[in-house]
Amino acid sequence: MSSPTIHGIIGYTITPFSTDGQRIDLDALGRSIDRLIASGVHAIAPLGSTGEGAYLSEAEWDEVSAYSLQKVDRRVPTIVSVSDLTTAKAVRRARYAEAHGADVVMVLPASYWKLSEAEILAHYATIGDSIGLPIMLYNNPATSGTDMSVDLILRIIKQVANVTMVKESTGDIQRMHQLHQRSDVPFYNGCNPLALEAFTAGAKGWCTAAPNLIPQLNLDLYAAVLANDLSKARELFYRQLPLLEFILKGGLPATIKAGLRLTGLEVGDPRLPVFPLGEAGIEQLKTLLR
Amino acid sequence: MSSPTIHGIIGYTITPFSTDGQRIDLDALGRSIDRLIASGVHAIAPLGSTGEGAYLSEAEWDEVSAYSLQKVDRRVPTIVSVSDLTTAKAVRRARYAEAHGADVVMVLPASYWKLSEAEILAHYATIGDSIGLPIMLYNNPATSGTDMSVDLILRIIKQVANVTMVKESTGDIQRMHQLHQRSDVPFYNGCNPLALEAFTAGAKGWCTAAPNLIPQLNLDLYAAVLANDLSKARELFYRQLPLLEFILKGGLPATIKAGLRLTGLEVGDPRLPVFPLGEAGIEQLKTLLR
Amino acid sequence: MSSPTIHGIIGYTITPFSTDGQRIDLDALGRSIDRLIASGVHAIAPLGSTGEGAYLSEAEWDEVSAYSLQKVDRRVPTIVSVSDLTTAKAVRRARYAEAHGADVVMVLPASYWKLSEAEILAHYATIGDSIGLPIMLYNNPATSGTDMSVDLILRIIKQVANVTMVKESTGDIQRMHQLHQRSDVPFYNGCNPLALEAFTAGAKGWCTAAPNLIPQLNLDLYAAVLANDLSKARELFYRQLPLLEFILKGGLPATIKAGLRLTGLEVGDPRLPVFPLGEAGIEQLKTLLR
Amino acid sequence: MSSPTIHGIIGYTITPFSTDGQRIDLDALGRSIDRLIASGVHAIAPLGSTGEGAYLSEAEWDEVSAYSLQKVDRRVPTIVSVSDLTTAKAVRRARYAEAHGADVVMVLPASYWKLSEAEILAHYATIGDSIGLPIMLYNNPATSGTDMSVDLILRIIKQVANVTMVKESTGDIQRMHQLHQRSDVPFYNGCNPLALEAFTAGAKGWCTAAPNLIPQLNLDLYAAVLANDLSKARELFYRQLPLLEFILKGGLPATIKAGLRLTGLEVGDPRLPVFPLGEAGIEQLKTLLR
Repeated sequence: MSSPTIHGIIGYTITPFSTDGQRIDLDALGRSIDRLIASGVHAIAPLGSTGEGAYLSEAEWDEVSAYSLQKVDRRVPTIVSVSDLTTAKAVRRARYAEAHGADVVMVLPASYWKLSEAEILAHYATIGDSIGLPIMLYNNPATSGTDMSVDLILRIIKQVANVTMVKESTGDIQRMHQLHQRSDVPFYNGCNPLALEAFTAGAKGWCTAAPNLIPQLNLDLYAAVLANDLSKARELFYRQLPLLEFILKGGLPATIKAGLRLTGLEVGDPRLPVFPLGEAGIEQLKTLLR
Repeated sequence: MSSPTIHGIIGYTITPFSTDGQRIDLDALGRSIDRLIASGVHAIAPLGSTGEGAYLSEAEWDEVSAYSLQKVDRRVPTIVSVSDLTTAKAVRRARYAEAHGADVVMVLPASYWKLSEAEILAHYATIGDSIGLPIMLYNNPATSGTDMSVDLILRIIKQVANVTMVKESTGDIQRMHQLHQRSDVPFYNGCNPLALEAFTAGAKGWCTAAPNLIPQLNLDLYAAVLANDLSKARELFYRQLPLLEFILKGGLPATIKAGLRLTGLEVGDPRLPVFPLGEAGIEQLKTLLR
Repeated sequence: MSSPTIHGIIGYTITPFSTDGQRIDLDALGRSIDRLIASGVHAIAPLGSTGEGAYLSEAEWDEVSAYSLQKVDRRVPTIVSVSDLTTAKAVRRARYAEAHGADVVMVLPASYWKLSEAEILAHYATIGDSIGLPIMLYNNPATSGTDMSVDLILRIIKQVANVTMVKESTGDIQRMHQLHQRSDVPFYNGCNPLALEAFTAGAKGWCTAAPNLIPQLNLDLYAAVLANDLSKARELFYRQLPLLEFILKGGLPATIKAGLRLTGLEVGDPRLPVFPLGEAGIEQLKTLLR
Repeated sequence: MSSPTIHGIIGYTITPFSTDGQRIDLDALGRSIDRLIASGVHAIAPLGSTGEGAYLSEAEWDEVSAYSLQKVDRRVPTIVSVSDLTTAKAVRRARYAEAHGADVVMVLPASYWKLSEAEILAHYATIGDSIGLPIMLYNNPATSGTDMSVDLILRIIKQVANVTMVKESTGDIQRMHQLHQRSDVPFYNGCNPLALEAFTAGAKGWCTAAPNLIPQLNLDLYAAVLANDLSKARELFYRQLPLLEFILKGGLPATIKAGLRLTGLEVGDPRLPVFPLGEAGIEQLKTLLR
């Protein structure tokens, strides 16, 4: 398998809905993708948490997946989140993404019943066996309900050949230290307020929805790290931290969609029960974006 | 709305799959329902956690729901779990269950993005407004990722007229004390190893998959409580506790399905990534069932 | 060693201070002990959490210990808490209590540095070897910072001959189930709002400061349990639960001392930084005691 | 009050005991202090966690305090930990330290009973009022049982004039972000495996026992940060991380005392129940120190 070099700022796309929330607004999706690429992000990740992938029907998921890949058109690498509660559906999505030109698929071990380590390992192995793409393993107990220890992650990497990258979203920097010390797997940060320290610890990239709103600050932080300029990285980080904390606390779909609307790109609201950003939040966001 | 009196032992049904895991085995489902009713349970709850409701497609969910209700045929009251990640789909399921004869619907606020209290309240209110059935509010942070405080639960009960029952599955007996002290809402226990103390604290019923395997012990415990015989209730509880702990630890679908197979009723395996019970577990279960 | 039968309501004593907080008020201590015994408690436990044992100098500890034992004068069995951060001082206190007539000593593995299981075991073994009294092992992570698993507790009981009782204060009823199923060690409940369910699960006694204020309700609850009258026990429990929750939430020394003052027994305030009960709390307590 | 500029590597001293554990070995203490100063640390902190301050009698505490201050003799600034369970004793220690020449006192809100925010604030205010020295507020829930939120910390700083520094040991980098964003109080890191990221986030110093064993690596890391050389800082951090993790996991008194012994300075063992480092640990430490 040809493995693209994923690094830097990896921008998450939202999934725009029509006003009544019933349909996907593909035109708005295309414009949001063009914006991200024009801003300079190093990769695009459709259908992640920000993209409300978990809230779509299968048909909608396919529609967004196919359209996003076609729209990116290999201008930058793509990482498609194919997570699902059942292994069978995750496999189907992974194959679909591969067939439609994804470079990487991302897999979060979503759970209803708590999964054993053997079950998680088998889940990754089955998905891995069914495609020819590299897999980015994604650890995010806050949304998945499953916390994969560093031991388990390294076991999966050893046993499933195409799991070649790790996205860590616990916000616990010690996990990254362990990954760095005990392997040479590239790891990526998925916790926005940890952006500075994750790069400090050696993260190869930052998976984030923030470039939908503040791409230049995100890119500049990464550039300062590459330039070995700690002071400048720190200064840039603290400038964007209030916004990063705001979107984390307010919820990514609600805050990013509100922010895009403020910049003139109408992408609809999140699907209920998730609320759109309220009036007070919108005012706060306006201030933060200034 | 006519509100059935839900009390006692409320038996959860499994969802049988064909050998290849692709189809629902309705015949086996029917037989498992007949068994539960014949054993004497006071109500039947299809499509709960035990029923792998979260792992079914929409079409499968409808199939199981309609068939279960038709099979029970009002011999005992029915409580159908209609939980879904989106409010729209939960509403659709609630209406479907109502149209097919459910007595009560159960709603767990499933989440991917953490929900605010206002979002949870609106979720219940929207579902409540769309049906004429009573709703059993279900709190189970271990599977839903959302922990509703007693304050929030009481607020929902006050504001949504047809939320008239609470199923508490945190295993924290103090929550039941609070419900008892601060309201007269009937509460039901969903944590198997808390069965004795929940009844002691005043729970009106026990929502459990155990009657698929040990109905008489479950029913006798409830009878001892009704007879105000604490010593006997304690003795009966400790006799069934090892099995209750086993099915909790091993996972309800895996252990209950293995147990039904041991009793001659083939109901297939859980859907992957959930594993069927392993050899060692089956041996342990055999010993426990003796 | 002669092992007294500890059961029922085990009353904790407070440690009265003079108005300036500098001296122990032995006279008030004596009167509080007489009250407890007169009320009918089945045992007396000086120098526990309620007794602010951790806040006393060594000389003060000795003074309270000797005086309390002399005052009880074997009218009921005594359980003296001898916990200390160092093994050497805990041994010294245990010997002191034995020399002054204690029936049982209680040991909580207080910690600054987290202790390993081997360290905890050695701590108990060393204390056990140095006295001829039975030891009540006390698990209370909220105050000690150390949570002993049931596995560890059972290992200690097996290896240290005179550890013959367990006081469980985690509030987790499943710990009591484990103790009941896996051993015949008598266990005692130290979590006030768990009083009803602990007895239901088989606890032999209830270690509590509540008899300083509401002894009859405490004793009646125990009597109802002995009489196998679940309904009455439940009714009695819910009548006292608001007070039990109040003293837990407000802190035992602050609330019990305020309560004794309300009944005419001046016992001073807790030692700073612990505040005495505030005005609002006193009013609430008055209402609860009516 | 004259406020010394505390920054860089702040070395914690151990408290050496005689072979029988009964006496303080002042001579060994003096040599360990001389070593630290000779190695280049920027400040010395006696009687902290590493110094087993919590395990000493009052007389021993005074002895170690007076001797340490006299031995340092203002070659570098000193920060004496004066924490105690009662406010009265913490005040006494603070005054003692001030009288014997300390530059700063450090206060951890040790607790047996959980303290309210008002109690913690009053504790700091009373200590602050009783001395003329600056106070370093110390947050370490793992040893104190009390977790001070950033809100509370900032409230204390605002209300108690001589609380002018914060030592944060939760290991949660977001706390440092909050301190940085919301105030200009200098903050210091007390979590060894967070050393790199704490400096990245703007920590002014690192409070650590590691300089007893690997002073040059600690000092070089700080120098690389001052030189704005992120790559070098990262490389130096990962070189010392295994040792930092080892002393955290093994416990500071046990591992640092074993390490000093390996380098020829006999300082005795920790006080029981804390075990000295075992054989396997000593071998591992030898390897790490090479």
